[in-house]
Amino acid sequence: MEISSLQKARYAYNPKLPAMLRNGIANICVKEGEETQSVADQEKIKALFPNTYGKHEITFEKGENTAPAKKQVVGVILSGGQAPGGHNVVCGLYDALKATNKENVLYGFKKGPSGLLEDDYLIFDDEYIDQFRNTGGFDIIGSGRTKLETKEQFAVAAEVCKKHGITAIVIIGGDDSNTNAAVLAEYFAENNTGVQVIGCPKTIDGDLKNEDIECSFGFDTATKTYSEIIGNIERDANSAKKYWHFIKVMGRSASHVALECALETQPNVCLISEEVAAKKMSLSEIADYIADSVANRAAKGMNFGVAIIPEGVVEFVPEFSVLIHEINELLAGAKADAFNALPTWKDKYAFIENGLTKESMAVFAILPESIQQQLFLERDPHGNVQVSLIESEKLFSALVKDKLSQRKKDGTYNGKFNPLHHFLGYEGRCAFPSNFDSDYCYSLGYNAFMLIQYGYNGYLSKISNLSKPASEWVAGGMPITKMMNIERRHGEDKPVIKKALVELDGKPFKFFAAHREKWAVETCYVYPGAIQYYGPAEVCDITTKTLALEKE
Amino acid sequence: MEISSLQKARYAYNPKLPAMLRNGIANICVKEGEETQSVADQEKIKALFPNTYGKHEITFEKGENTAPAKKQVVGVILSGGQAPGGHNVVCGLYDALKATNKENVLYGFKKGPSGLLEDDYLIFDDEYIDQFRNTGGFDIIGSGRTKLETKEQFAVAAEVCKKHGITAIVIIGGDDSNTNAAVLAEYFAENNTGVQVIGCPKTIDGDLKNEDIECSFGFDTATKTYSEIIGNIERDANSAKKYWHFIKVMGRSASHVALECALETQPNVCLISEEVAAKKMSLSEIADYIADSVANRAAKGMNFGVAIIPEGVVEFVPEFSVLIHEINELLAGAKADAFNALPTWKDKYAFIENGLTKESMAVFAILPESIQQQLFLERDPHGNVQVSLIESEKLFSALVKDKLSQRKKDGTYNGKFNPLHHFLGYEGRCAFPSNFDSDYCYSLGYNAFMLIQYGYNGYLSKISNLSKPASEWVAGGMPITKMMNIERRHGEDKPVIKKALVELDGKPFKFFAAHREKWAVETCYVYPGAIQYYGPAEVCDITTKTLALEKE
Repeated sequence: MEISSLQKARYAYNPKLPAMLRNGIANICVKEGEETQSVADQEKIKALFPNTYGKHEITFEKGENTAPAKKQVVGVILSGGQAPGGHNVVCGLYDALKATNKENVLYGFKKGPSGLLEDDYLIFDDEYIDQFRNTGGFDIIGSGRTKLETKEQFAVAAEVCKKHGITAIVIIGGDDSNTNAAVLAEYFAENNTGVQVIGCPKTIDGDLKNEDIECSFGFDTATKTYSEIIGNIERDANSAKKYWHFIKVMGRSASHVALECALETQPNVCLISEEVAAKKMSLSEIADYIADSVANRAAKGMNFGVAIIPEGVVEFVPEFSVLIHEINELLAGAKADAFNALPTWKDKYAFIENGLTKESMAVFAILPESIQQQLFLERDPHGNVQVSLIESEKLFSALVKDKLSQRKKDGTYNGKFNPLHHFLGYEGRCAFPSNFDSDYCYSLGYNAFMLIQYGYNGYLSKISNLSKPASEWVAGGMPITKMMNIERRHGEDKPVIKKALVELDGKPFKFFAAHREKWAVETCYVYPGAIQYYGPAEVCDITTKTLALEKE
Repeated sequence: MEISSLQKARYAYNPKLPAMLRNGIANICVKEGEETQSVADQEKIKALFPNTYGKHEITFEKGENTAPAKKQVVGVILSGGQAPGGHNVVCGLYDALKATNKENVLYGFKKGPSGLLEDDYLIFDDEYIDQFRNTGGFDIIGSGRTKLETKEQFAVAAEVCKKHGITAIVIIGGDDSNTNAAVLAEYFAENNTGVQVIGCPKTIDGDLKNEDIECSFGFDTATKTYSEIIGNIERDANSAKKYWHFIKVMGRSASHVALECALETQPNVCLISEEVAAKKMSLSEIADYIADSVANRAAKGMNFGVAIIPEGVVEFVPEFSVLIHEINELLAGAKADAFNALPTWKDKYAFIENGLTKESMAVFAILPESIQQQLFLERDPHGNVQVSLIESEKLFSALVKDKLSQRKKDGTYNGKFNPLHHFLGYEGRCAFPSNFDSDYCYSLGYNAFMLIQYGYNGYLSKISNLSKPASEWVAGGMPITKMMNIERRHGEDKPVIKKALVELDGKPFKFFAAHREKWAVETCYVYPGAIQYYGPAEVCDITTKTLALEKE
């Protein structure tokens, strides 16, 4: 198998552990902290997790390892979208497991949670795992989106664990997967299976964080990769001086990715979905906000710029949500047949005009035709609009163009507006993990095994103090139930890990808000360049501005 | 001004010069080689360039500098699209100029060749130029696409040079810009202006190369940036195992960029425009070629893959070129008004069906509707189809989808096909130059000043032996007329530098052709990762596979 010279070089990288995990397995002892309570809805959560609720927060320290000598057979699962560093979680877990006892065994269940249900696995050995050290991707065992959430699935999982003598399962996933990990942990405890469950916080979206989890892994590398590209595009814009680049970035509902990229690259505009929702902004208001930057820069002779658009923003525009809802109703069930039977777009448009409320029709009418058609023609199997497919970078540039045409007529704008469009997502999810993510992930995996060895169940592997050098990081664990509250999902009350959106009174957003007016008019671009794995520490070992600001 | 930590670190990088330029200005002497002849059409070229034709090839050596002591006032121009390393050409030029005589002056004409005509310039000093060392972009003075080609422009240029006492102009550009540099040099010589012209070979497209110029600068960095992204996408594809990624890459007509990226990343499919032309492939044949890879992989359970599409490929498909020609004729002049007056797409389609030949209509009919509409609705100011805007990555995935539907009906394919689309261009033109491009560009600029000092006119700065370490590089100059032939352009015979397309009997293509059948069916992805500026030499100092193969 041919590999790149960087991949070969990265095999030689030794990920940095927190100091308390560096003394060898025999010298890691556990310190139990306070008993925990869930962040909200304590009684309800407690009732749902009688066996795993209220456990102690724990940290590891240097000291004699007092864990019972027991052969461990562990299974690991990658769940959901790729995030750089996933391979290192597995490597850290494997190394701790083998360092403790060469007879210990690590199973990797393939293609996500379905691998556990289908008993589809491989057993790791040195030769196999060494190919994946410090590499990106989830191809070590594959990933998948099957949700482990029903009793029937749990029973199958228990059977598979029993068959192989598995003593613990490590689930590497986002908020939903770790919520499910907690429910599985409770099931295993309730049924005395003797199997523990440990979660690891993964997602490039950065929305799995709270007072215990400082950041999810992969966010650092993915945002650095996007920031590299955005910086390159900014430099191109500032050289050619003739294009406005509209760049949509991944991140699901939350705008952490967009915000971090904005802090790194200082674009002219960055929308923040959470602010759009809080201010109840209309599409027209957002377009005006962007058009202001375009016009103000044009007045200074700069007919170029860069705008970052978070993936989920249109869902946060109240009037747009209403429109989507009305479209879904308009085409529900058999009504879609009548619509589909209309021969031309003109006929269909009349049908739409007739079916939408006046308010929603006004919103619909300002959309570019390509988006209008997409809303009606590309629907999911249930007939619903596929919001995630909406090319919002093109939507906003089209709306801005209309605004500028009007301003030109009004004599308030006299520039040129040539937009270009980009979507950044798949480019960053499988990059070679940065040194930060390499270290953090390896530590999460190593630490997960220590939690297993000490018998913990329903815990999230927790590494904190992350804005400091790795030697000062703190390793430990936190009951997942501590991060839960009750939310309404699909008409049911469910215990879930609270998803973290961008806080408008948080330091990262406030820093952005304090600078963006200047960035909007002047050219303050910063060009981060490609992720460096070697070289000066300030170039290759620094994590995100988001984390730095949150911890300052 | 805020700058990134990488930018700050890159300021400290010392670009490597060829050994013969490392001894200080006082110890660089010139060695004249053979008289030169143009690669073709010698008599015609000679007649057009009586003052600059047939000059000697030259190289520099260690030895006493015998150049006349003369104050040099040099102007530099960046021409055309950005390429990483342009700033370093200017820095190398500046450093050699100032090392020779502190009284020497470097003018930078702004926004491309128009800066010379409009006398819009800045004068470089240490403080200003130091901000741009080893950085990407052309923002140091900006670039532009004005062509310097008429006598009237030359006369203006001569006036501006006279006004400032300019002794030489350095033009940093692609094949067209350097062709124009040669014509300007001839004009200056003919009119005894005393102004020399030196060119430097720039373009990420890699199509300015020949037996003297081993590669244009920027190609290394841009292809490394695209290969980083393609590798990341490959790893994502191989992790998620559910998408086919169609990735269009920049490169104008030539497929050098696509080919280099394919050599770096080993995708399942890479189209090469020159091969499409040589084999006179139809759209249907190309779609079948890609569909074969999709189907063969699906038969092995792999419903994912990566295909690279060179930007210019559709222009190389004979039947498509005919179609475009017919559309341009169909809508020429007033005929467009009749077309535009038709109210619906259905009416327009009937008009098209009536106007195209049967053969072209057959080609048109298989295109996806979005491309059909684009061909007719988005035309340039002359009413012509804008071929460069065609989203060929979507075109081919749509054609492949049709092929697969047919194969499913025929029972020869039973997989899933979910395509995603990317276009890589602006992401790579302004990246921080790789160490190779930093060194190469600095050397080109430094060397350009040596050519000026020794009185050469109409030469291209030439650094060769580039597949070896920089210490072994060879510095010198080549008359631009040597690279010229006569080509028919816009109905006229013109002397031009021959544009280099991918040679189908060249080693890079042959290597690709020898491996692509395996890559098409198996998963042989290579993940180059981000450009590294520090670390092991095999990670951060190696240039392209194209150059390595050409020179092996």
